[in-house]
Amino acid sequence: MTEEPTREVLVVGTGLIGTSIGLALRAANNRVWLADRDIKTCQVASERGAGQVLGVEAKPTLIVIAVPPRSVPVVAAEYLTRFPAATVTDVASVKSLPLSRLAEIAPNQLDRFVGGHPMAGREIAGPMSGRSDLFEDRLWAITPTEVNGAERVGAVRWLATQCGSLVVALTPAEHDRAVALTSHVPQLLSSLLAAQLVDADPGDVAVSGQGLRDATRLADSVPDLWAEILVSNAPDVLTVLNRVTEELVQVTKALERIAEADFRRDLPPDIGPVRSVLERGNQGRTTLPDKHGGAAHSYDSIPVVVDDKPGQLARLFAAAGEAEVNLEDVRIEHTVGRQRAIIELDVDPAAGPRLRTLLQESGWHIRG
Amino acid sequence: MTEEPTREVLVVGTGLIGTSIGLALRAANNRVWLADRDIKTCQVASERGAGQVLGVEAKPTLIVIAVPPRSVPVVAAEYLTRFPAATVTDVASVKSLPLSRLAEIAPNQLDRFVGGHPMAGREIAGPMSGRSDLFEDRLWAITPTEVNGAERVGAVRWLATQCGSLVVALTPAEHDRAVALTSHVPQLLSSLLAAQLVDADPGDVAVSGQGLRDATRLADSVPDLWAEILVSNAPDVLTVLNRVTEELVQVTKALERIAEADFRRDLPPDIGPVRSVLERGNQGRTTLPDKHGGAAHSYDSIPVVVDDKPGQLARLFAAAGEAEVNLEDVRIEHTVGRQRAIIELDVDPAAGPRLRTLLQESGWHIRG
Repeated sequence: MTEEPTREVLVVGTGLIGTSIGLALRAANNRVWLADRDIKTCQVASERGAGQVLGVEAKPTLIVIAVPPRSVPVVAAEYLTRFPAATVTDVASVKSLPLSRLAEIAPNQLDRFVGGHPMAGREIAGPMSGRSDLFEDRLWAITPTEVNGAERVGAVRWLATQCGSLVVALTPAEHDRAVALTSHVPQLLSSLLAAQLVDADPGDVAVSGQGLRDATRLADSVPDLWAEILVSNAPDVLTVLNRVTEELVQVTKALERIAEADFRRDLPPDIGPVRSVLERGNQGRTTLPDKHGGAAHSYDSIPVVVDDKPGQLARLFAAAGEAEVNLEDVRIEHTVGRQRAIIELDVDPAAGPRLRTLLQESGWHIRG
Repeated sequence: MTEEPTREVLVVGTGLIGTSIGLALRAANNRVWLADRDIKTCQVASERGAGQVLGVEAKPTLIVIAVPPRSVPVVAAEYLTRFPAATVTDVASVKSLPLSRLAEIAPNQLDRFVGGHPMAGREIAGPMSGRSDLFEDRLWAITPTEVNGAERVGAVRWLATQCGSLVVALTPAEHDRAVALTSHVPQLLSSLLAAQLVDADPGDVAVSGQGLRDATRLADSVPDLWAEILVSNAPDVLTVLNRVTEELVQVTKALERIAEADFRRDLPPDIGPVRSVLERGNQGRTTLPDKHGGAAHSYDSIPVVVDDKPGQLARLFAAAGEAEVNLEDVRIEHTVGRQRAIIELDVDPAAGPRLRTLLQESGWHIRG
């Protein structure tokens, strides 16, 4: 039995991400050094147990540049030079632009730089306090290029694995294109939609329901962080955004023709472009990965009406547990003005009828 | 003690909504007549217990026109004429256009028509099978105008109440403006976003997470129904859509300038327009109503890591129930490739610390 040797790692930038990486590496018994241009921040991270403030005796073999996207090239170049044997990685949500800048300022050291992006999901918008399990069970994209040797790539894979993440390897271009589509543009559209509520009549917003809440959930994200992400991935974001805008204009024109046709009442309106977006929306949803990485599939959704008081959910889930049915998803739909809620239990279609029967036999009120 | 007298109601159109209204009225012991231009559909609804097929002896005092928005004016006019004493209402998601059409074809009978819109939320996209509790605990907008007497408005309020809904009175214009903002445009943007996934590289979509899933949930809606809704509310949808497009173009231009500035590297890019959308998105989210109709407020969100197997949720909720803490919301965040999930429990901030302590003492793994 060989034991995975512990490594000596330097984390540069001790914000949420850097501190969390330090904590995760320390939890796995590695030696961690910390650096930040703000020494106080660095000391706070160190006191929280994320590592030691960088000392002259440090000999890191792996360096994690955990600074905002736009600062990555300069900081990475600095540490590539300062530690000429170390592998260097970063954690930015954007990969191509920082790499091309780095290629200009440190062209002979690119073989030691392997980009990385821990995809911490919604937590990234949380309080600025690092935690050792921030990346557990998340995807961690790594973006090696052909100049990176296997050992360099292996070091960055090791880092992701130490933090409990699942590694997915992409080219920088693939990464940026993927996150533009699946993360950056959704963020922008969600914020744009929520922004429309700011100057709206409060009475208008009062009739909104769960749909608007879901569609705008991403709009809770931290503006400073996301402005920088969007800006740093501007070319790929623009590619998706231009397609969205083009389709939006087509739908708008169709609606204008429809409004006009209704006014003139001489032609049946052509609702094709409107329907097309809705149909392709249905289709697009089926491409989303399901929770365990397979193809999406549909669940049987069982709507249960419960009183909105302590203990009700426990009783409901106890009943589901007795049926030995695994819940794939749960949604609580609240009701304006009533002390009741609808709990939608998503289960495997094969198990649905059995769970319905069991719940009804136990006296639960299932809608429909 | 006086008992609410039962009424004689005619439901015209026995699709999901009409059938559900019939079932709800029958459950409350009213006399219900059913009509549909498709007699078979009508018979199915009748066999399901939604009422009797319209007979010559019918003397309805209230008529519910439950047909698609574009058919409302003609069908409403027909029944206003046929039953010259009855109050007539509809259930369409759009109010102004049908009313103005009706005003042209039945100008002298408008006093007996009071528009209505049961806001059944996501269920409207469900299977086409009516159920008596479809509208329970939902908002039911009614849109009386100044020509409607109190008795007419009262009859429609009565209908909504019989179906278990909460009544909100709006003018037709207010209604259409509100749903354009809170329902129709969110639907369109959600579909538009999901539509971008159709031709995407599957590898790109594979890195998507909960954020994209939330932002596109509305895109599961039924295209035919929603095309008609959007088309019938074209003017109000266009008002919101034009603002969205205008802002989208501003953001696009800002990103283009940024991409260009990065290329030329002569100017620090102006990220103002991008940041502004994100900031106003934050602000817009705070305007959403909370579940019981009050102002939005924030919850303490407790992320618990659980094994993804039967019984785990039951144990977790039992623990929460023992703490006598009411769960305001629950999210299950699945993890690609792992048999584990993160359950986020949203609770009143005052109760958060107590629940955290209790869960940890019971051996639950709370992240962070």
